[in-house]
Amino acid sequence: MALIVQKYGGTSVGTIERIHRVADRVAQTQQEGNQVVVVLSAMSGETDRLLKLAHEVTTVPDERELDMLLSTGERITIALLSMELRGRGINARSFTGRQVGIITDSAHTKARIARVTADRIKEALKQGIIPVVAGFQGINEQSDVTTLGRGGSDLSAVALAAALKADRCVIFTDVDGVYTADPNIVPAARRIDKIAYEEMLEMASLGAKVLQTRSVEFAAKFNVPVEVNSSFKEGKGTLVTKEDAGMEAAAIAGVTGDRNQAKITVIGVPDKPGIAARIFGSVAEAHINVDMIIQNMSQATLTDLSFTVPRADLKQAVSIIQAVAKDIEAKSVSVTEAIAKVSLIGVGMRSHSGVAAKMFQVLSREGINIMMISTSEIKISCVIDEKYLELAMRSLHSAFDLDQAQS
Amino acid sequence: MALIVQKYGGTSVGTIERIHRVADRVAQTQQEGNQVVVVLSAMSGETDRLLKLAHEVTTVPDERELDMLLSTGERITIALLSMELRGRGINARSFTGRQVGIITDSAHTKARIARVTADRIKEALKQGIIPVVAGFQGINEQSDVTTLGRGGSDLSAVALAAALKADRCVIFTDVDGVYTADPNIVPAARRIDKIAYEEMLEMASLGAKVLQTRSVEFAAKFNVPVEVNSSFKEGKGTLVTKEDAGMEAAAIAGVTGDRNQAKITVIGVPDKPGIAARIFGSVAEAHINVDMIIQNMSQATLTDLSFTVPRADLKQAVSIIQAVAKDIEAKSVSVTEAIAKVSLIGVGMRSHSGVAAKMFQVLSREGINIMMISTSEIKISCVIDEKYLELAMRSLHSAFDLDQAQS
Repeated sequence: MALIVQKYGGTSVGTIERIHRVADRVAQTQQEGNQVVVVLSAMSGETDRLLKLAHEVTTVPDERELDMLLSTGERITIALLSMELRGRGINARSFTGRQVGIITDSAHTKARIARVTADRIKEALKQGIIPVVAGFQGINEQSDVTTLGRGGSDLSAVALAAALKADRCVIFTDVDGVYTADPNIVPAARRIDKIAYEEMLEMASLGAKVLQTRSVEFAAKFNVPVEVNSSFKEGKGTLVTKEDAGMEAAAIAGVTGDRNQAKITVIGVPDKPGIAARIFGSVAEAHINVDMIIQNMSQATLTDLSFTVPRADLKQAVSIIQAVAKDIEAKSVSVTEAIAKVSLIGVGMRSHSGVAAKMFQVLSREGINIMMISTSEIKISCVIDEKYLELAMRSLHSAFDLDQAQS
Repeated sequence: MALIVQKYGGTSVGTIERIHRVADRVAQTQQEGNQVVVVLSAMSGETDRLLKLAHEVTTVPDERELDMLLSTGERITIALLSMELRGRGINARSFTGRQVGIITDSAHTKARIARVTADRIKEALKQGIIPVVAGFQGINEQSDVTTLGRGGSDLSAVALAAALKADRCVIFTDVDGVYTADPNIVPAARRIDKIAYEEMLEMASLGAKVLQTRSVEFAAKFNVPVEVNSSFKEGKGTLVTKEDAGMEAAAIAGVTGDRNQAKITVIGVPDKPGIAARIFGSVAEAHINVDMIIQNMSQATLTDLSFTVPRADLKQAVSIIQAVAKDIEAKSVSVTEAIAKVSLIGVGMRSHSGVAAKMFQVLSREGINIMMISTSEIKISCVIDEKYLELAMRSLHSAFDLDQAQS
């Protein structure tokens, strides 16, 4: 008998009809001989409705009160699904974040989980009850309601799976898994059967929106096998798990593209100690994340310093940098917005040499100039002209044999 | 500095515009030098919306799950009002029924309050914070959410006022107080300035819908002065309080009419011991409340037994009584639906004799036949033909000097 945590997102419980279908699947999983714990999001649209009310009331709603408001959405869906299951004669019970002991810090609207007791869930499971748990929410040490921020319900599910030592945590969503690339850009992309936590982390932070980074980190830390699957069709999904022997066959798990970057170059920077610290210190103070950095010696005592920032922060970053440039007597500041980052990700890179060389070769063959490069143990990223992003992704996807059906 | 509990009903917080007005009033009460505790209902329509969802899911929703569902409505309004107040720079904080320690039994959807700790409210008041509390809800000893049934938010407010030893509990609603009679029937009816708990209890149970019986009982038990007032206009309301010297002037506080009754007569009942117990025992078993009973000797050994039941229960009561009538060999069963009960209420009856005589005289003068009579220390009720109800109410209202402005 396996213990399975199933999480259904907002679109999966968005209508009464869809809640019926969730009940079908929960019932089926139990009939197959498993213990089931269900974690739910709010009905899609409900959170927006509540946020709209809050902003009609006041321009900057208090965050503790926002949590009180927003945490109602999941209570509605857990009550409805429990009613539905009980109406079918299946013993189900709804539980709030508090009732299952999801204890968080007090950072309202973006709280971090401190610990999970799950006592009432364990007790319910012993009695043959299916616990239906409100995702996205917890309580702090003062017993005030908190919410876990964007993607918080995934995190609730993974954290409960860890606390319960569940055999699997299945995240039901509107896609049937993680793909080797965005299928909208790379039509030949295919669903990945199995992916390592580290790969998934890189995929998530590089633009694949299936699973939130925090949930994957949590799953990796507690070694929770996470399956991403579709709540709208039957079939296999993607299993996110620890790296194992079976994964070594492929060097590359996937290709990602990210347009959310802009490049700033400070030209003619005096090559003196402490200058880089001045520049990046001032940007960090404004809570702007610098991603890639390169430095070119342009003359004997002057360098050019380029780096990328999120496009949304570009305006603020430029005004900071222009002030610093004046201070340090740099020549000028230039900005390139139309850039993109293409990345190859795979734990197989550790044992397969030549991945970087091949990547550069493919891009060069397509006439794509590489502006910046950064590498990690399981990832290579190149910044290129934005207009070539789709071409680069498709070419790399094909060149690294990702178009083929998995053996 | 007075401590005032203010309760606002669903229509008073039904829109964002109305929540603004509630905030105005709360702010004003504080500025006048009072400590304020606010208790809110759900926005009008919200409870119906949730119930509709529940009934779309399943025909008979589980009651524990209904409480989980319905208790979200008040959480939304307390969060919105707290945001609004904080947005104005007023230190307010929302609290759920659980957070303020409203502990109930486990009778889901109609729980009874076992005790109220109010610790967090006391702490908040000490810190100058205005607590904004979700009405209608509590938790049981297992920490599951419960709701208090119809009118539950009034009860929450009165119970908190009792626990906090508040100087006053103000129930803001869509009428500006308790009237000497229903103004829709008796145009000359006027707002009562002050009314005793016992009178209010009789008024409430006899059809005046301003305050729920349970709230008045609770207020009487803990001697909480309750004011009923309008949330839509400024001005005096009605104070419900213990009987005092100032109230003795008037014999009668008000006139009520109740159409929610039907009369059943069992004809030709053998006059033997235990027969009445048989009849009323069988009705009680079906949880039908019998209100008035009269017995007429029709022959030496046979009596006619008449009694009234709520009109909604009539069908069920008749089928029970017909079976019993056969058993005890009564002659027949007759039913009169078109009856109504007109009542005079007033603590002054205790010291004013002749109220009953005058009532009968007034009805007789109008040609209204009295079918049944029942009296208590502070109430006289007559069952009459339904078509005379309005006439009876207006005549009595005038005859007992209720039309006059209060001295």
